[in-house]
Amino acid sequence: MSVQDRIRYTSLHSHLMSAAQAASLIPNGANVGMSGFTGASYPKVLPQAIADYARSEHSAGRPYKINVWTGASTAPECDGVMAEAHAVSQRLPFNSDRIMRQEINNGDVNFIDMHLSHVAQQAEFGFLGHMNVAIVEVVAITEDGMLIPSTGIGNNQTWLNMADKVILEVNMGMPIQVEGMHDIYQNNLLPPHRSPININRADDRIGTPYLKVDLNKVVAIVESNAPDRDNVFSEPDEKSKQIAEYIVDFLSHEIKQGRLPKEMLPIQSGVGNVANAVLAGLLTGPFENLYGYTEVLQDGMLDLLRAGKMVTASATAISLSAKAFKDFVDNIDFYRERIILRSLEISNHPELIRRLGIIAMNSMIEADIYGNINSTHVMGTSMMNGIGGSGDFARNSFLNFFVTPSTAKDDKISCIVPMVSHVDHTEHDTQIIVTEQGLADLRGLAPRQRAKVVIEKCAHPDYRDQLQDYYDRAVQTAKGIHTPHILTEALSWHEHFLKTGSMKM
Amino acid sequence: MSVQDRIRYTSLHSHLMSAAQAASLIPNGANVGMSGFTGASYPKVLPQAIADYARSEHSAGRPYKINVWTGASTAPECDGVMAEAHAVSQRLPFNSDRIMRQEINNGDVNFIDMHLSHVAQQAEFGFLGHMNVAIVEVVAITEDGMLIPSTGIGNNQTWLNMADKVILEVNMGMPIQVEGMHDIYQNNLLPPHRSPININRADDRIGTPYLKVDLNKVVAIVESNAPDRDNVFSEPDEKSKQIAEYIVDFLSHEIKQGRLPKEMLPIQSGVGNVANAVLAGLLTGPFENLYGYTEVLQDGMLDLLRAGKMVTASATAISLSAKAFKDFVDNIDFYRERIILRSLEISNHPELIRRLGIIAMNSMIEADIYGNINSTHVMGTSMMNGIGGSGDFARNSFLNFFVTPSTAKDDKISCIVPMVSHVDHTEHDTQIIVTEQGLADLRGLAPRQRAKVVIEKCAHPDYRDQLQDYYDRAVQTAKGIHTPHILTEALSWHEHFLKTGSMKM
Repeated sequence: MSVQDRIRYTSLHSHLMSAAQAASLIPNGANVGMSGFTGASYPKVLPQAIADYARSEHSAGRPYKINVWTGASTAPECDGVMAEAHAVSQRLPFNSDRIMRQEINNGDVNFIDMHLSHVAQQAEFGFLGHMNVAIVEVVAITEDGMLIPSTGIGNNQTWLNMADKVILEVNMGMPIQVEGMHDIYQNNLLPPHRSPININRADDRIGTPYLKVDLNKVVAIVESNAPDRDNVFSEPDEKSKQIAEYIVDFLSHEIKQGRLPKEMLPIQSGVGNVANAVLAGLLTGPFENLYGYTEVLQDGMLDLLRAGKMVTASATAISLSAKAFKDFVDNIDFYRERIILRSLEISNHPELIRRLGIIAMNSMIEADIYGNINSTHVMGTSMMNGIGGSGDFARNSFLNFFVTPSTAKDDKISCIVPMVSHVDHTEHDTQIIVTEQGLADLRGLAPRQRAKVVIEKCAHPDYRDQLQDYYDRAVQTAKGIHTPHILTEALSWHEHFLKTGSMKM
Repeated sequence: MSVQDRIRYTSLHSHLMSAAQAASLIPNGANVGMSGFTGASYPKVLPQAIADYARSEHSAGRPYKINVWTGASTAPECDGVMAEAHAVSQRLPFNSDRIMRQEINNGDVNFIDMHLSHVAQQAEFGFLGHMNVAIVEVVAITEDGMLIPSTGIGNNQTWLNMADKVILEVNMGMPIQVEGMHDIYQNNLLPPHRSPININRADDRIGTPYLKVDLNKVVAIVESNAPDRDNVFSEPDEKSKQIAEYIVDFLSHEIKQGRLPKEMLPIQSGVGNVANAVLAGLLTGPFENLYGYTEVLQDGMLDLLRAGKMVTASATAISLSAKAFKDFVDNIDFYRERIILRSLEISNHPELIRRLGIIAMNSMIEADIYGNINSTHVMGTSMMNGIGGSGDFARNSFLNFFVTPSTAKDDKISCIVPMVSHVDHTEHDTQIIVTEQGLADLRGLAPRQRAKVVIEKCAHPDYRDQLQDYYDRAVQTAKGIHTPHILTEALSWHEHFLKTGSMKM
């Protein structure tokens, strides 16, 4: 099959060109909307061509940087190559690439770390500026000129609607049989003209399987043939398994207490090893007929689908290991009936997360004894990846869990601290904190009560006395003790680590 | 008219009793749901009776404390008297009473500071415990046994549904002609059985004008005759007027830029003098046919309705000065057609705030240069009032404003600081910060860009150099400079104030 066979709207064949030719259509300073969500469905060849073009412009003494807006993170061959070529001025809303992270933390890239549910609407409201170019990976173009989406949707429909010019990458490496798996709901009416989004169950379909674009805006079509990032996971370690066990036990307990329906509620699971361990825990747990309503479908959820433990999974992207992706492709007819990929705005929509009553599980960098969560900043100043959808889900969920091992860096860092060095989720939002030490259920507790539970249940034994000592002295010395703190000491654990390499005093 | 005339369901007459008799029905340790929202519709006589009962129990050497859950703040004759009698063990979700605040900050009361939109559902989910008694102020009881609500709804319907026993206060001082003003939507289905809430405009009505209760649960009816708290406001001062002017200019500018519809969008306005000044600014501004969709309807919004500038105002309570309340009563037929009082869960619902595209305006204690907002904690440890609905509105709004004078305590405190001493709204949520110095539009800016704008536009001149100096040194010394900070200094302004009485170094 040639790329022409995948461009069934044949008058578009004339727009086929090389990535280099397409990249040259993107001017310096452009706002560029790209596909890409957690290592899935990002453009595979344009970013390298943009990087090359930037280098040639820089060599010629001309400035060249673009602003890159995506769904979420991409891959080394997208964010990485552009960052390495110093081709990016502004980046939003999420990044996990190492080189791009360096550029962000050394001040070369302005990174806007947004709630993922806010991105499409703020762009449509005009709050982020005009969009010049959209670059979107697709699997094929239908006879009617509709776009068959790839392994992720993210903000693609919004970018296609907004951009002046559109560049499509047709990825020959993606199975064309994904057609029908997506559900694209187009209701970009702005306030005051909005109406309810009629999803009442995690598996409701309310849109069409295609992205739409004004074909007059398509200025280039580029062929690619490359897999998504290999989102490989290590086998769950002991700590992750322990965290998963606490969560599974807790959910079973809540069902017994009548606080959670027997049929459970749809599950959101963040990215990473701990998240996958929790899903692995559900695989052997007592639950049946589960539903997923999440951002990213990873290996663990695919396992649940294959095992028949999960009925349907809704997400905005499929982000798999190469091994799991092979299983996905080999059994595409099975998975197409059980997976729904939606726009990011829908997968993360506050209205839907609250209505469906999602059980949200997200990892974090650190928590403090009062339940504030840092999901983004290492030692208060360096960006890790971004908040992603953790705020969308945590705030609007039925239940939320924040998980981390109790220590990092060979126990030199305590992930439970007196005061987090950056707040992404406030004490008002956090319900349950889990480490391999235990589970702290903070529902209905005041700050001093929370501190007791977090120290007892979640802190590593090496740091428990140190935390208790801080808390006791804070209660004795603070002017008001609704939330006892010693402001001179609150962030001293982080400082101590920066100076000595350890938080141990 | 006697109280019997207001209890048209005559078989309930036998439940009439004194407040003291009713209070004795509330056991030590009870979870008690009370009406009351921002000084409106709180029970007027039961709290004093509870306080008296607590004192007599304490004198007899018996413990007596109850847990008090309301809609929001009440009044000295409710929170105040109970706090003074040490009759409260746990309080949620909001308080503005001085004596209760003391009890919270000295550690005697466990205060749970919640997003107001979370309270009813967390109670229904069973996350807060069992509710023993509900005490709800009403205006009358109909022939059918329906309850005509008073000046606020808050969580009343939820308390009436949940409580084992119900005590009603029939307030003879409230005009019976409010009948028909309320819109109580009863859909307490829990996930996974929820469906969309069909409000598409601020003035849509989807419920009935009455609260419902299982009359078998009514154990007491008590007569009261007292006005709500006199929510008196000082005339807007120069700083408030200046803040209001910046906001009105900004809104006009956004309309000109096509980023805000000409008809504007529904307005939410927090509580306080600055909020009222902004509403006063809208009164003389260029806008017509405004809608309010807010928590609390205060004097400023009543003025807009009377002047014909605002078509309809939706809220969960009417919290007026005594003077404005007289106008409300004198013109009740006019206002009943233009005011809709809803359950707190609906007035603050994320689904509706996002759909309607609310313009949210809330005051704060302090902001930091990166856009984090402290709405609750004085110097990091003492509770002021609580987050209230500011998070519900800010997170889900079309536009959000956080406002404060740039300094407090005769310029001894800068309300713009390097790092806030407590975070209620994160950098991911904050859009626009306004002080009397100027307006900082943070939309689409990365942290370092925000710092520049906040220092330039919002900081008081006395503190501008000090902030810039902190920022410059942070950029030079921080390990990563996505969000430059010097952790040893970040909270030093607050410490300096606690030690010296001033943030000036």
